[in-house]
Amino acid sequence: MIKTRTQVGIVGAGPAGLLLSHILHLNGIESIVLERQGRDDVEAIIKAGVLEQGTVDLMNEIGAGERMMKEGLRHEGIVLRFDGRDERIDLADLTGGKAVKIYAQHDVIKDLIQVRLATGGDIRFNAKDVSVHELEGAQPKIRYREADGTMHEINCDFVAGCDGTQGISRPSVPAGKLEVSERLYPFGWFGILCQAPPSSDELIYSMHERGFVLVSTRSPDVQRMYFQCSPTEKVADWSDDRIWAEFRARLRTRDGWEPKEGKIFGKTVIGMRSMVVEPMRYGKLFLAGDSAHVVPPTGAKGLNLAASDAQILARALTSFYQQRNSDLLDQYSDIALRRIWKATRFSWWMTSMMHSFPGADAFQHKLQVAELDYVTRSRAAATALAENYVGLPIEWPASGAKRSRQAAVKPVPLAA
Amino acid sequence: MIKTRTQVGIVGAGPAGLLLSHILHLNGIESIVLERQGRDDVEAIIKAGVLEQGTVDLMNEIGAGERMMKEGLRHEGIVLRFDGRDERIDLADLTGGKAVKIYAQHDVIKDLIQVRLATGGDIRFNAKDVSVHELEGAQPKIRYREADGTMHEINCDFVAGCDGTQGISRPSVPAGKLEVSERLYPFGWFGILCQAPPSSDELIYSMHERGFVLVSTRSPDVQRMYFQCSPTEKVADWSDDRIWAEFRARLRTRDGWEPKEGKIFGKTVIGMRSMVVEPMRYGKLFLAGDSAHVVPPTGAKGLNLAASDAQILARALTSFYQQRNSDLLDQYSDIALRRIWKATRFSWWMTSMMHSFPGADAFQHKLQVAELDYVTRSRAAATALAENYVGLPIEWPASGAKRSRQAAVKPVPLAA
Repeated sequence: MIKTRTQVGIVGAGPAGLLLSHILHLNGIESIVLERQGRDDVEAIIKAGVLEQGTVDLMNEIGAGERMMKEGLRHEGIVLRFDGRDERIDLADLTGGKAVKIYAQHDVIKDLIQVRLATGGDIRFNAKDVSVHELEGAQPKIRYREADGTMHEINCDFVAGCDGTQGISRPSVPAGKLEVSERLYPFGWFGILCQAPPSSDELIYSMHERGFVLVSTRSPDVQRMYFQCSPTEKVADWSDDRIWAEFRARLRTRDGWEPKEGKIFGKTVIGMRSMVVEPMRYGKLFLAGDSAHVVPPTGAKGLNLAASDAQILARALTSFYQQRNSDLLDQYSDIALRRIWKATRFSWWMTSMMHSFPGADAFQHKLQVAELDYVTRSRAAATALAENYVGLPIEWPASGAKRSRQAAVKPVPLAA
Repeated sequence: MIKTRTQVGIVGAGPAGLLLSHILHLNGIESIVLERQGRDDVEAIIKAGVLEQGTVDLMNEIGAGERMMKEGLRHEGIVLRFDGRDERIDLADLTGGKAVKIYAQHDVIKDLIQVRLATGGDIRFNAKDVSVHELEGAQPKIRYREADGTMHEINCDFVAGCDGTQGISRPSVPAGKLEVSERLYPFGWFGILCQAPPSSDELIYSMHERGFVLVSTRSPDVQRMYFQCSPTEKVADWSDDRIWAEFRARLRTRDGWEPKEGKIFGKTVIGMRSMVVEPMRYGKLFLAGDSAHVVPPTGAKGLNLAASDAQILARALTSFYQQRNSDLLDQYSDIALRRIWKATRFSWWMTSMMHSFPGADAFQHKLQVAELDYVTRSRAAATALAENYVGLPIEWPASGAKRSRQAAVKPVPLAA
């Protein structure tokens, strides 16, 4: 058993864990990141990414944004298609110049691993049988087994559980200490990757009685498209021809719009659910990212919530180490959850407005059309959609009652 | 059988019928209003009223607003209570100075009857067995029986069906010609009238796990309050003490707020549903107000939709008689329904956000709190609520394609 010590032990090298580790490093706080998979595996998990303005800004602030700024696509609007017509939500105009960046999640991970390793970061890939211990005590421990069988124990001040929905962090909390709120949606998304030029300059969110469609993009040659399906839909039942016929039927507008077709080289079915765990802390363990919450993909919030969790937790830890002030650590769960619940609300709302619900009646469908008609005609309502899409601000505790303490927290620099 | 002729035969002396008749009069178009009940009965139907800015403006424009301006209460904000705290929606600030007027529906009706009779209006109360005929022909007819048994037949160019949900107009349309979309809510409102000073300067919409409460007002001495109940709740089961205990339990804030109690002199249970009939026209019959749509009372939209229907129909008829242009009549249903569906959406949204749903889980409750937290913290979202509450504009057909025709319609004066 090899024993080590660090300040913050981080379980999971996804966006939450890597961002947290790097922001801590920039503030002079050391951490070790443990990742079950190998580096190649982690970097190969193909996953779409729509980065909020705040996530883009964060990547740049911490020096990890160079490739993203070169290769990512800045989108200043999205299109809502319903009732056979297109209405554009002008994100930049409605939010004072904010926008989103289309940049795949695995590219974000690649960039973060690179910058973390380049700055001396300690990321241990292929860490097997990770377990966390003594979370209630002053010095929690993380144990894991190296590929060659060597056992390791890391003593740390805090553990960050950034290991996603299937990770070990959340299940390590004793039963009854966390409350889980969950909602399953009665449909899934059938996703394809295809070799074709973009069908649209901007993402199209399409509502149709046959079901929702998202027209997205990956690059000038590769497109990512989804259509709403049954949660138990089988990929094998969908030939390329049948897929394109379905897309054409749902996407047709009064002007006869059709998608640009091409060779399909990837087909998947993903489920849709909302889940929130409360609180996001147990003793010295802090949960961040997918280990604490799941959103349906409609609002593109998963990666961005991981980023804001990391940002909040990093500032709280920095405040602890630099000012010996644990107020923000004590408030971490509340601050993070307030933003998470709003993103959960937004994702649920976008999902409910855009999808066909099995068994829905005419009233339901017309209500959704009325909602889309209202949202796209009212500047206030369009602004509400846009500000959520580009990302709501983190609501830090109000100054006032705790003014003197707040003052001590504010000057914490994010980047060294 | 006494035969008469008029231009527009109006069935029902509620807000829609009376407003329509008076606006038509001001534009030189004659009408006869038939009302099943006596004048005293019509004026005695106690019903709350929250008048949108547009309804207030309309009442003033047509010379029926004098008493409303004196006795009605202008409210520039409402309070949303949730999570034990109050958040104010500043209607006036968010909508560029618009507000609502608290003025009971029976007072609106009294004022309209008075102004209509003072200007020579022909309102026939106690008109029994009203029936409509030859709606598809050039000259539809309305028949009715006077109190003394005399039969009457009115020949007219158009019939306006303004006789509410229980009226004869809608059922007179042949089966299959109208589509009805409906939603029943799994709860009702238990309403009380009490002898007490106002508990609050502004209306309080309160969301609580025990159920919704609305704290409203009638006058300095009489208050109107509602709490969410089962749709089959029995008035007899609720003693005054039990009622006040329920109000206190649901309305308590972190600051210990309590309602001002007083003698209860009215108890009723009202059901909650949404209903929309499409189209709102069959041949020469035009439906307006509750005969075509019902909203739950949460958004206070019923009376206001009757007013906008009347306004749209009056302008369409005026355009027909003054310019011999039937475009607006042909578009009446579409123009009215667009606003109706948006108000239906708003009423459904307010209802869904503020009520406890039987069988709802923790996720649902937290989603509603998150929605309220978002709506009251985001200026865009608060503006969206406010602009709906004070009333969305009527969306007249866009100029452009039909520019020359539009030009002919625009100068129609509402008041002579």
